[in-house]
Amino acid sequence: MSHPHPELSPPPELPEGGLRIVALGGLGEVGRNMAVLEYDGRLLIVDCGVLFPEDTQPGVDLILPDFEYIADRMDDVEAIVLTHGHEDHIGGVPYLLRLRRDIPILGSQLTLAFVTAKLKEHRITPVTQVVKEGETRKVGVFDLEFVAVNHSIPDALAVAITTGAGTVLHTGDFKMDQLPLDGRITDLRGFARLGEKGIDLFMVDSTNAEVPGFVTPEAEIGPVLDDVFHQSDQRIIVASFSSHVHRVQQVLNTAHAHGRRVALVGRSMIRNMGIAAELGYLNVPDGVLIDLKKIDSLRDDQVVLMCTGSQGEPMAALSRMANGDHKIQVNYGDTVILASSLIPGNENAVFRIINGLMRLGARVVHGGNAKVHVSGHASAGELIYCYNILRPRNVMPVHGEVRHLIANGALAVKTGVPPERVVLAEDGVVVDLVDGKASVVGAVPCGYVYVDGTSVGEVSDSELKDRRILSEEGFVSIFAVVDTATGKVIAGPQILARGFAEDESVFDEIQPKVVEALEEAIAKGATDAHQLQQIMRRVVGRWVSNRLRRRPMIVPVVVEA
Amino acid sequence: MSHPHPELSPPPELPEGGLRIVALGGLGEVGRNMAVLEYDGRLLIVDCGVLFPEDTQPGVDLILPDFEYIADRMDDVEAIVLTHGHEDHIGGVPYLLRLRRDIPILGSQLTLAFVTAKLKEHRITPVTQVVKEGETRKVGVFDLEFVAVNHSIPDALAVAITTGAGTVLHTGDFKMDQLPLDGRITDLRGFARLGEKGIDLFMVDSTNAEVPGFVTPEAEIGPVLDDVFHQSDQRIIVASFSSHVHRVQQVLNTAHAHGRRVALVGRSMIRNMGIAAELGYLNVPDGVLIDLKKIDSLRDDQVVLMCTGSQGEPMAALSRMANGDHKIQVNYGDTVILASSLIPGNENAVFRIINGLMRLGARVVHGGNAKVHVSGHASAGELIYCYNILRPRNVMPVHGEVRHLIANGALAVKTGVPPERVVLAEDGVVVDLVDGKASVVGAVPCGYVYVDGTSVGEVSDSELKDRRILSEEGFVSIFAVVDTATGKVIAGPQILARGFAEDESVFDEIQPKVVEALEEAIAKGATDAHQLQQIMRRVVGRWVSNRLRRRPMIVPVVVEA
Repeated sequence: MSHPHPELSPPPELPEGGLRIVALGGLGEVGRNMAVLEYDGRLLIVDCGVLFPEDTQPGVDLILPDFEYIADRMDDVEAIVLTHGHEDHIGGVPYLLRLRRDIPILGSQLTLAFVTAKLKEHRITPVTQVVKEGETRKVGVFDLEFVAVNHSIPDALAVAITTGAGTVLHTGDFKMDQLPLDGRITDLRGFARLGEKGIDLFMVDSTNAEVPGFVTPEAEIGPVLDDVFHQSDQRIIVASFSSHVHRVQQVLNTAHAHGRRVALVGRSMIRNMGIAAELGYLNVPDGVLIDLKKIDSLRDDQVVLMCTGSQGEPMAALSRMANGDHKIQVNYGDTVILASSLIPGNENAVFRIINGLMRLGARVVHGGNAKVHVSGHASAGELIYCYNILRPRNVMPVHGEVRHLIANGALAVKTGVPPERVVLAEDGVVVDLVDGKASVVGAVPCGYVYVDGTSVGEVSDSELKDRRILSEEGFVSIFAVVDTATGKVIAGPQILARGFAEDESVFDEIQPKVVEALEEAIAKGATDAHQLQQIMRRVVGRWVSNRLRRRPMIVPVVVEA
Repeated sequence: MSHPHPELSPPPELPEGGLRIVALGGLGEVGRNMAVLEYDGRLLIVDCGVLFPEDTQPGVDLILPDFEYIADRMDDVEAIVLTHGHEDHIGGVPYLLRLRRDIPILGSQLTLAFVTAKLKEHRITPVTQVVKEGETRKVGVFDLEFVAVNHSIPDALAVAITTGAGTVLHTGDFKMDQLPLDGRITDLRGFARLGEKGIDLFMVDSTNAEVPGFVTPEAEIGPVLDDVFHQSDQRIIVASFSSHVHRVQQVLNTAHAHGRRVALVGRSMIRNMGIAAELGYLNVPDGVLIDLKKIDSLRDDQVVLMCTGSQGEPMAALSRMANGDHKIQVNYGDTVILASSLIPGNENAVFRIINGLMRLGARVVHGGNAKVHVSGHASAGELIYCYNILRPRNVMPVHGEVRHLIANGALAVKTGVPPERVVLAEDGVVVDLVDGKASVVGAVPCGYVYVDGTSVGEVSDSELKDRRILSEEGFVSIFAVVDTATGKVIAGPQILARGFAEDESVFDEIQPKVVEALEEAIAKGATDAHQLQQIMRRVVGRWVSNRLRRRPMIVPVVVEA
């Protein structure tokens, strides 16, 4: 297998008849999935998602793929293909369309409904083209064929992309539940047919490549929910993802069977389930839904509340319920079901909620004590099936951290793909498919693009570093006014601190030393405000470090009057 | 079971002949374990540990138990009993001894060796008394009996405390490995004997109460290590906790069997293993240890490096190796073993390291793909054994978050302890054992005490809130000099920002408005600097919110000249 992070130069020109693939996100992280394919000077984009920030990126709302590589080539883009409607595959579309609004977007009916609703919030009306499994489309030089795949959202598609360079199969996110609720399985007969014709490059979901075996069928959750409902004689609150139509379906069915009614809680849950019901992806049993405002007319054992917040998001309904800070009050004896996986990194937040709910006397059912969630991504056993059915000539693991990509590549090798035909690449690495062989030929710059409030790309890594310092140490600011004529400090130094040493009298002893240092420097000829600021920084910084053993950010300002 | 967080008032006076128990840490969190027992006006302390901060407590080094409750009663303290040598049980001792240096400390040989080494760094020489399993001691009104327990550090002890109010058994941390490496099992015969005499209150470790079944024996790790060593023909790096003597023992043994030599890396690892070897808890096979400086004389397949950093601590050796930022270079084909549990909350940091090591080409063996770690805490199955052997009259789960305490209480009830005899309490809750019944009688204040650098208790929750705001939004400071005689702004406003909008020209447009607002206010009679500062805060705050859609901390300073 190739090394995932060789020292790479800018790529050479793409040879005629070759296909170039560059991921602008999703290789080396779980999120912001986006791949750009180039053939004969034309571009095709597969997915454009967002990544959610970690705690080392404070204040950041979202992270986008880096569009820099294609920013001045927007007219070459034939289309965007969206594999499914999850945020990590569609969330970046509004930002990409700011560069060119009329790029055609292809996807399944539900996927396009979700992205259209999202674009409406950004006041963009997209140019869309609904496609279905089994259908083909020609967009410029790219021949597309769509293949049904099963995932934790309905209507997901894989896409086979054929050019003069051969055929690429991109799975999007998928798993191989053989008995899914809606009967729509990953189309292995389609995979087999494509395999017989020949797959030159297989771009395949790596998220669960480290997990041995097979994902439990979604259908097995129903009986578990039924069991939990049976044991509950008060309110039941279920938290999950707002796009997990099948999970909500199971909750509606179980509630219906137990004579309970379900109130949807939260904007995204109501919006998405509205879309899914309207398009026929969610079957709402007659009369099972009730408006949240009307639940007080029901007995507690007739109520189910379906909300988001299962990942510990502090502003979501569940977190506020756990804090006793939401109009829905959790009472002793209520049951709360977290019907979702615990995404790594969210443990503290989720356990804080579980502790809060248990403290209020709720019984909390979660992945740790009951089978109330299954993953949406193929495990190792399923991936091996795929490799054997497809027998791809080259493999490029996508969607995952380095450890996932490497694990997925190792599975390919186990099934007989030659190691030199497994391409391990990270974001920005340029892979060319030429004469039937895929190889790394270089790299383009591909950084993190931060969305913070309404600003995109304005928050830099250096600002994030400042934020980390501020969060760990706080800051001290020092103001002084200097009369340049007399060389005297005529006002200040005023010293104040935040995030540490809030009792500012601690600074009394350093103030005269700052004045002394400034006046001495002026006497020696220093006049420039910048110079004087550096002197204040040094005097106060040293003193804080020696006397208080801290290293806050020091922000000096000298004004000349 | 009692409710863990009733609305509680200060407790009434302790009735004569009653025993009072107050945990100043460890109930509601995993860490800073400390219990204070009071009988006849005298106090006994069991453990005094630290808690490590979460990401919502930026810049905090440690969190201590809140000593406030006993601060003015230090002369009543008969002794501190330490159950074992882990930081979450001994780390707070140096801070407690600042209140009174000569409190006698009782503990096993290894525990006292660890705490003495720690106290030496704080330049404190403690008054210690070594005790052994099976021994009894009388300290004032408290009759103590020590019982061997098995844990992830050698020489751990449970303690039975008898007063006129009855007998309390406190387990400390423990599990019930029936075939431990050193043959020292949790003394269930001792438990049985105490049970026959009668346990009035059982204070019992809750950490793993949610985990069904039994902990795998430590001895089963040896063969797994052996296997990994067999498959490795380059360097092997093992990361674990610096106090896990038995784990290090297994690494030494396996290395010896494979003709490899082990270099210990890191101050705490070298110090602790030095102590353990000197006291006979670690048996170092002849010639297996080698100084880190000398490993270059060995072939790669003769080397094992034993280090810390398995929890992703950014400054530890392992993290720096993963970043290519340590003198020990990780090469393609090296093996890295993370022989420790993944403590919840550390996932991001640990996976960042795993990704970094795999990117360098290392094979990484960890709990997710091999049985290279077992927990040190009794699982549900073991706890049930204990309850059945002891048949305690009252139970008070200790050491855990709310969810752990509740799960442990439920196990007690399953074995026949009446629910009203299970006391669920959080930090500061006062539990009295009177006439054979334990009950919650009130609460005392018990907050988090933060250690940040050399300061203890100086960082407040409001400062941490400031730090969180700073980390998410950055700050804007505004400085102006006002001539009170003329009512004019004679210097400034100087506006600067950190953590957002580093290009300060963005503030050009607001500067004249600040001047205008200030001069208008002065014209209307405002003279007080505080008043003028509020005006600057309002003007700039509104503008930043409307124009830039951000909510940074706003720090205004007006100086009158």
